[in-house]
Amino acid sequence: MASQYDVIVLGSGPGGYVAAIRASQLGMKTAIVERESLGGICLNWGCIPTKALLKSAQVFEYIKHSENYGITISGEAKPDFGAVIKRSRGVADSMSKGVTFLMKKNKIDVLFGNGKVKPGKKIDVTDKDGKTAEYEAKHIIIATGGRARALPAVPIDGEKVIEYRKAMSLTKQPESMLVIGSGAIGVEFAYVYASMGTKVTIVEFMPRIVPVEDEEISKELAKNYKKLGVDIYTSSEVTKVDTSGKLSKVYVKTPDGEKTFDVEVVLSAAGVVANIENIGLEETGIKTEKGKITTDDFYRTNVDGYYAIGDCTKGQALAHVASAEAIICVEKIAGLDHVEPMNYNNIPGCTYCTPEIASVGYTEAAAKEAGYDILVGKFPLSASGKAKAAGAPEGFVKVIFDKKYGEWLGAHFIGYNVTEIIAEVVAARRLETTGHEILKAVHPHPTISESIKDATEAAYGEAIHL
Amino acid sequence: MASQYDVIVLGSGPGGYVAAIRASQLGMKTAIVERESLGGICLNWGCIPTKALLKSAQVFEYIKHSENYGITISGEAKPDFGAVIKRSRGVADSMSKGVTFLMKKNKIDVLFGNGKVKPGKKIDVTDKDGKTAEYEAKHIIIATGGRARALPAVPIDGEKVIEYRKAMSLTKQPESMLVIGSGAIGVEFAYVYASMGTKVTIVEFMPRIVPVEDEEISKELAKNYKKLGVDIYTSSEVTKVDTSGKLSKVYVKTPDGEKTFDVEVVLSAAGVVANIENIGLEETGIKTEKGKITTDDFYRTNVDGYYAIGDCTKGQALAHVASAEAIICVEKIAGLDHVEPMNYNNIPGCTYCTPEIASVGYTEAAAKEAGYDILVGKFPLSASGKAKAAGAPEGFVKVIFDKKYGEWLGAHFIGYNVTEIIAEVVAARRLETTGHEILKAVHPHPTISESIKDATEAAYGEAIHL
Repeated sequence: MASQYDVIVLGSGPGGYVAAIRASQLGMKTAIVERESLGGICLNWGCIPTKALLKSAQVFEYIKHSENYGITISGEAKPDFGAVIKRSRGVADSMSKGVTFLMKKNKIDVLFGNGKVKPGKKIDVTDKDGKTAEYEAKHIIIATGGRARALPAVPIDGEKVIEYRKAMSLTKQPESMLVIGSGAIGVEFAYVYASMGTKVTIVEFMPRIVPVEDEEISKELAKNYKKLGVDIYTSSEVTKVDTSGKLSKVYVKTPDGEKTFDVEVVLSAAGVVANIENIGLEETGIKTEKGKITTDDFYRTNVDGYYAIGDCTKGQALAHVASAEAIICVEKIAGLDHVEPMNYNNIPGCTYCTPEIASVGYTEAAAKEAGYDILVGKFPLSASGKAKAAGAPEGFVKVIFDKKYGEWLGAHFIGYNVTEIIAEVVAARRLETTGHEILKAVHPHPTISESIKDATEAAYGEAIHL
Repeated sequence: MASQYDVIVLGSGPGGYVAAIRASQLGMKTAIVERESLGGICLNWGCIPTKALLKSAQVFEYIKHSENYGITISGEAKPDFGAVIKRSRGVADSMSKGVTFLMKKNKIDVLFGNGKVKPGKKIDVTDKDGKTAEYEAKHIIIATGGRARALPAVPIDGEKVIEYRKAMSLTKQPESMLVIGSGAIGVEFAYVYASMGTKVTIVEFMPRIVPVEDEEISKELAKNYKKLGVDIYTSSEVTKVDTSGKLSKVYVKTPDGEKTFDVEVVLSAAGVVANIENIGLEETGIKTEKGKITTDDFYRTNVDGYYAIGDCTKGQALAHVASAEAIICVEKIAGLDHVEPMNYNNIPGCTYCTPEIASVGYTEAAAKEAGYDILVGKFPLSASGKAKAAGAPEGFVKVIFDKKYGEWLGAHFIGYNVTEIIAEVVAARRLETTGHEILKAVHPHPTISESIKDATEAAYGEAIHL
């Protein structure tokens, strides 16, 4: 029997739905399996709704400081927590509906239910009524994503101890919150809640917050968060949460001994684990390693005809990585000739708290460790006319070049709007720029983006505005 | 007698002060002549203070629409016009002080007064007491900038008929304003005043507002301005302003016949003319053409030892152009070997109204006229998750590629934060990118910058999100 489909994609997040669309575009008959909402975590419970919450928090910050901008408010301003959450859900829903439209437009069959791959390039899809149907495809792409990692000492109960999903759909704003973990998710929620008036405490196991970032970024963010009123405990660990009282008692091992905190809500944001259970990997003989599906550079698993992309496989657990992997995977299946492996050292990472963080490539420490002789340039946004005019002089733009060949090794930004300017670095690094080429690219004034040029000048000892 | 200086720069705007710093960095003894405030128009009366006003207007817009973000305000919010102006002046002053610091740090002598070049590489500087001193240099760089162009039919009286400088230092917010001209300056002020509650009317001589932009940009901006309550008359001309009454009567020739408007203030924003009078050009024999100083590709005038950069010479009258010309001019004087002429087709232009406008390279019409066979891709920000989360789905990102070789001919953006994302296009064009390279540069999600990739996909018929 001929396969019903050329491609079946398991999971409709930013890996899966992009894979399905590209496959359909390239003439392949395609279906996508989704157990919940089209768009996956990113659109429904991740990137998009959190940005909506962050925007509400940012608007509230503007209102709190409106006098700084010459605006007078006679009464009182306060966030209507329910309305803030409702707006966020609305944005997520409209994006998810957008994916529904795209599936239809691209003639992709959407199969709702739990998918389980089987040998012979088959997949079982069990719908909510428990009815199972079998489908077959020449190529099966697994894009099941990830979920919040639960810490053994901190069981998630969904009420007093929650993860990100619940944190963006609470019905009432908590008066106090303890956030475990200070990666992107942790610090974003810390900002949202703290700026709306919740007393927020961050507990981070590593010696500094946003530990994957360049060390100077961590310092700058900590400084700003302290100003916002967020308490931060680094090199610290939650050892127990007692949820028996009205407030939960959180026991934290800190460098200064054990401390306890009484908080209304504990948010566990200690990273992401891949969804690789109960999807038929063992039955099909698909290999995993350290909790992720093993693939080659074109996302082929060890079993012919099965592929894996996104958070369930290697690479940074980021939406844009999943989407990029989807394109490479599908174009390779289609036999396009320009397909090349991804350079995981050129993936930007963005955190949308205030000040924003954006980075790509080597940190200063990593570049040194890799043996590079480096040039480092740093431009404080307090010297940027645009940042000053915007009332946001916090942060800096830092760039790292290889001294010998001028290769752009890394970029680490913290401040107003920096998540929008990092793409230049990615594109320029892909095009194998040197620092001098960046100096000759005329950046518009006044923008935050021109600080990239300023920082590059500083790296080469040619700083004009410092 | 040996020259007192290696370099004297006439004018301390973003052309002049950058030239002076670079010259000093390269070991040249340098002086700068300024008749008013260090930093010139850009810092004191241009780019920077207008961005401060625009930020106040933007914050007020957020407050007006705070319910959309879930924030409740019990009382009334209104701009305190005096405070808005004061903040803007404060930002400008602090930036100007920054230039004072930079001059000192770089050991540049600041000569306050009116400068006039003379034959023999000399310059007279007359201070405010009328005392004149003569200075001599091996190289004299003229960077005298520009000023608002006055229309013959609309004499500027500084009260009822004003130009941009007065528009950013009014003591009272006018109830009504008619803006002549819809270039960057005109539409920026129109936005500031309209969003703060002034009834604004724009009169534009050309058939569309922001006439140098791509035609679709003009349409989109007009649509948004109409929503804001701004009345727009294109293909129209102010023929007379009668300032005898309490309100001024403005006579406008429109395609539908003559109309009259009674307004409190008329803002003349009909472009910029170069400051080339009374600075000794004729006496020194320095040639001008069409009101600008003539130079070669390295900003050398026809007289050896005299140079001209910025608004007083060729090229777009933009701060970043002046600064880039300054670097080229000075590095050529210093004999650096990597100096190359500027590509004026790769200069970004930004307008900071809401929605923002940013563009570079050929418009669609210009690309066709130049004979290119083009690929055009457009991505509406209503399909961008970031724009939606920000509550700003207006506008689009449009890219133009050459079909044959993939050369990036132009980019035209209108929408939230687009002024921060255009630098990627400039850098990538400088690095001779093709469209396919941009598709392979992983843009961060969710950002406005990723819309560049989305638009590029659309140009190549590979749109995922459309």
